[in-house]
Amino acid sequence: MITLLIKATRQSKDKLFCRLQSNMSEELLQRVRDLEGEVGRLKAQLREKVKEGTGGEMAVSTNSDGKKDTSKPDAGGRKKGKRGSRDRPFDFSAHPRRHVALRLAYLGWAYQGFAVQENTDSTVEARLFEALLKTRLIQDRQSSNYHRCGRTDKGVSAFSQVMSIDLRSTQFCGGLGVTLPSNVDADVKNEVDVAELPYVKMLNRVLPQDIRILDWSPAPQGFSARFDCQSRTYRYYFPRGALDVTLMAEAAKRYEGTHDFRNLCKMDVGNGVLQFQRTILSATVQPVHKTPPPAPTTADPYDLYIFEIKGLAFLYHQVRCIMAVLLLIGQKLEPPEIVDQLLDVKTNPRKPQYSMAVDFPLVLFDCHFEGLSWRREAEEVEHALATLQHHWTQTAVKTQVIHGMIQGLDSTGGTSSPHCWLMEGTKQRTYRPLLERPRCESLESRIEHFVKRGRLEREEGENGGETVHKGKRPKHSHHTSISSVLPDVSPSF
Amino acid sequence: MITLLIKATRQSKDKLFCRLQSNMSEELLQRVRDLEGEVGRLKAQLREKVKEGTGGEMAVSTNSDGKKDTSKPDAGGRKKGKRGSRDRPFDFSAHPRRHVALRLAYLGWAYQGFAVQENTDSTVEARLFEALLKTRLIQDRQSSNYHRCGRTDKGVSAFSQVMSIDLRSTQFCGGLGVTLPSNVDADVKNEVDVAELPYVKMLNRVLPQDIRILDWSPAPQGFSARFDCQSRTYRYYFPRGALDVTLMAEAAKRYEGTHDFRNLCKMDVGNGVLQFQRTILSATVQPVHKTPPPAPTTADPYDLYIFEIKGLAFLYHQVRCIMAVLLLIGQKLEPPEIVDQLLDVKTNPRKPQYSMAVDFPLVLFDCHFEGLSWRREAEEVEHALATLQHHWTQTAVKTQVIHGMIQGLDSTGGTSSPHCWLMEGTKQRTYRPLLERPRCESLESRIEHFVKRGRLEREEGENGGETVHKGKRPKHSHHTSISSVLPDVSPSF
Repeated sequence: MITLLIKATRQSKDKLFCRLQSNMSEELLQRVRDLEGEVGRLKAQLREKVKEGTGGEMAVSTNSDGKKDTSKPDAGGRKKGKRGSRDRPFDFSAHPRRHVALRLAYLGWAYQGFAVQENTDSTVEARLFEALLKTRLIQDRQSSNYHRCGRTDKGVSAFSQVMSIDLRSTQFCGGLGVTLPSNVDADVKNEVDVAELPYVKMLNRVLPQDIRILDWSPAPQGFSARFDCQSRTYRYYFPRGALDVTLMAEAAKRYEGTHDFRNLCKMDVGNGVLQFQRTILSATVQPVHKTPPPAPTTADPYDLYIFEIKGLAFLYHQVRCIMAVLLLIGQKLEPPEIVDQLLDVKTNPRKPQYSMAVDFPLVLFDCHFEGLSWRREAEEVEHALATLQHHWTQTAVKTQVIHGMIQGLDSTGGTSSPHCWLMEGTKQRTYRPLLERPRCESLESRIEHFVKRGRLEREEGENGGETVHKGKRPKHSHHTSISSVLPDVSPSF
Repeated sequence: MITLLIKATRQSKDKLFCRLQSNMSEELLQRVRDLEGEVGRLKAQLREKVKEGTGGEMAVSTNSDGKKDTSKPDAGGRKKGKRGSRDRPFDFSAHPRRHVALRLAYLGWAYQGFAVQENTDSTVEARLFEALLKTRLIQDRQSSNYHRCGRTDKGVSAFSQVMSIDLRSTQFCGGLGVTLPSNVDADVKNEVDVAELPYVKMLNRVLPQDIRILDWSPAPQGFSARFDCQSRTYRYYFPRGALDVTLMAEAAKRYEGTHDFRNLCKMDVGNGVLQFQRTILSATVQPVHKTPPPAPTTADPYDLYIFEIKGLAFLYHQVRCIMAVLLLIGQKLEPPEIVDQLLDVKTNPRKPQYSMAVDFPLVLFDCHFEGLSWRREAEEVEHALATLQHHWTQTAVKTQVIHGMIQGLDSTGGTSSPHCWLMEGTKQRTYRPLLERPRCESLESRIEHFVKRGRLEREEGENGGETVHKGKRPKHSHHTSISSVLPDVSPSF
């Protein structure tokens, strides 16, 4: 990434804004990222200009200031189709729409998270919508029927993020998920099958290199990436260090099943998350390299392991909190039973204060759906693979350079604690057991806080129990008790 | 490094300069690096303020604008000694001087090279001299009797770079390499042995995290890191990909011995390098992990290898050119015999055009000297180790995240060519054998070029042969023939 960084800034000649505020450093970094993204997009476009075009579809480039540039003239002199200049507004209503699912992968280290934010456009979603608008696949976000499966935080990557959305289509003859334009009669315009738009290629051409669409699938009209997800799988990579990985694997199993995870997440009561029961289908700790493990005395602290956890839906920061506790268990600072104690919300209704694990090793690895048929374009996969290999080469080689130096210094048998760097914040000199630490606010207390401010309302239920729901009480209110409020299934970390 | 980057820019509140020139992108990146270094220095200082001091020695911090800040008061209230404010110039002549060797390690990826440059202060040497001046270990560079063993290029790292220099000393009683102040009589001031200044700790406190002094050694007065080096060893790390590493190992041996390497370097005639004979003591290709190699069909393309080369002195870019040719041999684009052909300067007096290997995998791993006794401070080594482990954790984890995605995509058995990313420039579609390519200028032609411009002079020798030497002919000229001009033993790449 550093090499990409150097290349981007050297080639850009955009204006550098001048600020003397204290937040300038955030904008400085964002500026560098913007430039990096812009170079990636321009390179992608240049590559396509050298190869064959895609039957008239042109990507309109946008420089970092948001101004549109018309694309370079095609060397072959073929008919170009719409140039997408401001003078000719695109008539979306003349085209069919198609409800689709898109599967994407991204490296999250250069972004401020997946979801769009007010104070920065350095988010994965922002780049996605830039690309969707540039390619005229959607008219605007609001009318695009967009749902996302998960929402990853700053620094978190994804190998299988899924979104559902309505895109422009060529399928005047109809098809799965296709809606014809209102002025078109399905019988009259009985066209020969034309190929659908090459969604994956069109988007990848204009997306930054570290965000890739892997495949797409037609989807029935009611399909939602958010609500129809069958399971979500996360991976957290970590070095063995001096950790007892066997103990960690044993402790991980204790998370499996349906439990109240309020002590293992960041409670998001303000956003209406009032119920913390979640189901973990599996939680394992495995070495990356599947060779038979050596005896513990010869174990290499620089071996890498994966904590893999699969569930229906996850709470905010749940995986990182779960991981933090596993790391404490691995260091033998807590016994494996601490997991059961933290899941016992009757005995422990309030979360002990502890830091979650850092962001960069976390990957949303899989989102599973039934009933979709993913259409992969081999050329696009090859290209994504090449980009990943390029990136891998840089990081893997640098990793070895550093490791060579560590080995050179380590001959005196110094302490090897690479796992220490996975906890947020500074390390305390004396370890304080979790259950002896100060506790965070309880759920009831947080609810009370928001009820007082009118953001949540309490009311008497039919059976005498109390219920809580968001916002002002509507006319025809739908009563739900605290214990059965549906989880907000927009899992995020 | 990216995480370090983010932390540095967030914490700095220094002024952001405003330029609209086309070279602003270089300065932008440099600015980010400066900030990163500044944070590292400040953190190092803060750490030392918490721990014990060093008996009155204070490091004076300098912010990125070059202004001096006085250090924070010591919490223990101990006597501080000189504060180093501008009002009290330091009297170097009152102190002994000591000729020493310093061994250092650095990660070169964030720097523009080792040697000081005019257009940037983002070099390792610039940081070293900042540190030496801040700690008042030297008065200025010019009077410090400074020699360096090697000069690494932009992006190249070092685990054993050695320099020799005169530093301030406490040794009024004399010692190896010590020169007493002129006004001091060695007999009169026969002080009890005091400890020498803790050079390693003092410098590491104020150096950026990615530059570390490992140890120091007293040195006899005539010792020079540049001229007294017995051998230099470089390592180049690379992934196996689809390379035939056995063939590469066999080809590497052909470089051993004394040869004319003009076709395997970048000729630097303008700087007086006129002779290209060098001696390679060993050249090997080994896997990083010493497990028994699996059969070639099950070889993992993501295994890492080291090309290690040991020689007396090296020419400019010699190792990277050697590596480039080895990579071509490993891809079976050239036979191993090409090495012998390139070393045969009678048959091939002019270098074929080819790109050298990229910079980031290269490490100056060892510089060997006789007669020095390295003094290592355990605490400093622990600290350097911790810093390297922190760095390793980030790169190793990111490497696995990417590798996990590659494995996920690669199930269709796509082509795995991570080694391709090690050559500079773009890959040609059709391979052109080296000996069929256009050739670079010959040595004689280059000499002629500089002779015409007065930077080199030819003259008739005693035995009728021609000689060449740098610059204008001095009054009492020293005749040397072309074939015996001493190599410029300032090895660089």
